[in-house]
Amino acid sequence: MAGDFTLACPLPFAGDETIQVAHGGGGRATERLLDTIFRPAFDDPELDRRHDGARLDLVGPTAFTTDSYVVKPLEFPGGDIGTLAVNGTVNDLAMCGARPEFISAGFILEEGLATETLRRVVLSMRAAARAAGVRLVTGDLKVVDRGKADGLFINTSGVGRIVAPGPVGPDAVRPGDAVILSGDIGRHGIAVMAAREGLGFESEIASDCAPLAAPVLALFEAGIAVHCLRDLTRGGLASGLVEVAETAGLAIATDEGAIAVRDDVAAACEILGLDPFHVANEGRFVAFVAADDAEHAVTVLREHEVSSGAAIIGTVKAAPAGRVTCRGALGGTRVIDMLNGEQLPRIC
Amino acid sequence: MAGDFTLACPLPFAGDETIQVAHGGGGRATERLLDTIFRPAFDDPELDRRHDGARLDLVGPTAFTTDSYVVKPLEFPGGDIGTLAVNGTVNDLAMCGARPEFISAGFILEEGLATETLRRVVLSMRAAARAAGVRLVTGDLKVVDRGKADGLFINTSGVGRIVAPGPVGPDAVRPGDAVILSGDIGRHGIAVMAAREGLGFESEIASDCAPLAAPVLALFEAGIAVHCLRDLTRGGLASGLVEVAETAGLAIATDEGAIAVRDDVAAACEILGLDPFHVANEGRFVAFVAADDAEHAVTVLREHEVSSGAAIIGTVKAAPAGRVTCRGALGGTRVIDMLNGEQLPRIC
Repeated sequence: MAGDFTLACPLPFAGDETIQVAHGGGGRATERLLDTIFRPAFDDPELDRRHDGARLDLVGPTAFTTDSYVVKPLEFPGGDIGTLAVNGTVNDLAMCGARPEFISAGFILEEGLATETLRRVVLSMRAAARAAGVRLVTGDLKVVDRGKADGLFINTSGVGRIVAPGPVGPDAVRPGDAVILSGDIGRHGIAVMAAREGLGFESEIASDCAPLAAPVLALFEAGIAVHCLRDLTRGGLASGLVEVAETAGLAIATDEGAIAVRDDVAAACEILGLDPFHVANEGRFVAFVAADDAEHAVTVLREHEVSSGAAIIGTVKAAPAGRVTCRGALGGTRVIDMLNGEQLPRIC
Repeated sequence: MAGDFTLACPLPFAGDETIQVAHGGGGRATERLLDTIFRPAFDDPELDRRHDGARLDLVGPTAFTTDSYVVKPLEFPGGDIGTLAVNGTVNDLAMCGARPEFISAGFILEEGLATETLRRVVLSMRAAARAAGVRLVTGDLKVVDRGKADGLFINTSGVGRIVAPGPVGPDAVRPGDAVILSGDIGRHGIAVMAAREGLGFESEIASDCAPLAAPVLALFEAGIAVHCLRDLTRGGLASGLVEVAETAGLAIATDEGAIAVRDDVAAACEILGLDPFHVANEGRFVAFVAADDAEHAVTVLREHEVSSGAAIIGTVKAAPAGRVTCRGALGGTRVIDMLNGEQLPRIC
């Protein structure tokens, strides 16, 4: 299809300062944008073939996932919509027990978007893809008229080979499994909220946005019996745990003292009246592993910078089905639930 | 990630009449929307697993493609954004010489969208997926605030096994190849334009939006030496031919008399001052095949309803590189080029 990244005809950069509707038309203006911004950043033999799709060589069980990104603002401390779009899909593949290999990118641009903003986002995507070891092999570009989008939306889909030796998902969780959290929670949500609302906290809190495949693959390489993985995004730790508990038909008991929240994040949550359990993350996950493997798993995870704060935060119980609880520092126990509404729209 | 189709917890339909921001929050409202609209339509064992992605079993060369759809209006004679989103990606896979197998769907909804509109679009996607024989195995849902999108955008990505025995793409095109067009051109563009602008033509022109995999796969099954395939979308027949000619470094000579344009489409083009070569299609493609196989290919294509109007429209020449020409009925020859700007924004 015209407007895929996979088209013909290099042209010199004509210095378009903002995105125009013609950039989405699949004609010469589209080619100019592809040649000046996208193709130099996403240099891949598959893109060079300039065809309607990429050709991959895959063998065996493969994970396939998709996410659209609509974060506002487009750029925030610790990342931008581009880093988020690559890492989010890389992480979804990792949570399937897969080695992320190939991603696609579909861009919806709003007329009037600064070309420089697009260039920065695309370069962030390149850096994130390299860091995560994935190839961006196919893409698409659309432009909508002014006022019909919010600058820039990105969809990424991903494909990767499943390396997990057994099923990884809520159905594989068993009573007695240990629940391991990979690090402190709440940074992404607070970073985006502060950037959007112009909140001036004493220290700048940066998003935790990061690729999680390396520590996850290390768990499998170490022979850990990983039963389920879940990255913690919108809805935070609470949604992640409740989803697994409800799908598995089991209970999860956690210990508040084991769940790390940085002081500055905790202070921001207190000021804003937020529960850190509900605040979004983009570089954190929970792993459900056999109890006997729990200490080993924590040791493996701590060898990776992104999961150096890994800790056992709870245990899976047989009942009541779908119930997640948290025991506080003073011994009281509260029930953890998903938010009913929306804490912070467009966090990812 | 929360908000994937692959989540837990059925809830009764609460009768939300319009999309609200909370539907994108990954919490209870998201679940309600998934359970009342998406899951009943996209009933698939992979979705039932409610995990971060789907598990596919793939062997050998695989095609991977992505497209975002921003068509305006969302519904038009002959289809809607949902049929377009499924068929567009199915067709991109077919153009890679692949059998379309699995697709993903990422939805960006605008607050205030009528839930009934969404339901109709989702049901169209289901029907299109069934007609094309593909499984929708993973998805994602985001909501942006009122005025920050235009009702509904959809991204679909697709994966399919490559059945073509050799390379299929512009690089495989050779001088002497026959150029076959699968049917009459221009219907999709005129249908969308008429729906958008409220143009009242004498007869209602419906989009040609359709899946193209069946006739394409039939070419391979018949042993035709298919060198390149290109579906004709935005930019029309002109862009499709010019892209191939430029990438291949060859010339293409076509014969206007062989290119079918329905009378009502031709009349609409004349009224609107459009060249049918530039008008969008969503159910048409060109095939570049070895000259010796051309007649056989046309016979095979004509056995399928969607390509029953297939005809040889031209020939590939060695030079000049990138040049596409068309010989008119009166013998004059004109050069065919891509549009520089945009004929009709948001046609797909």
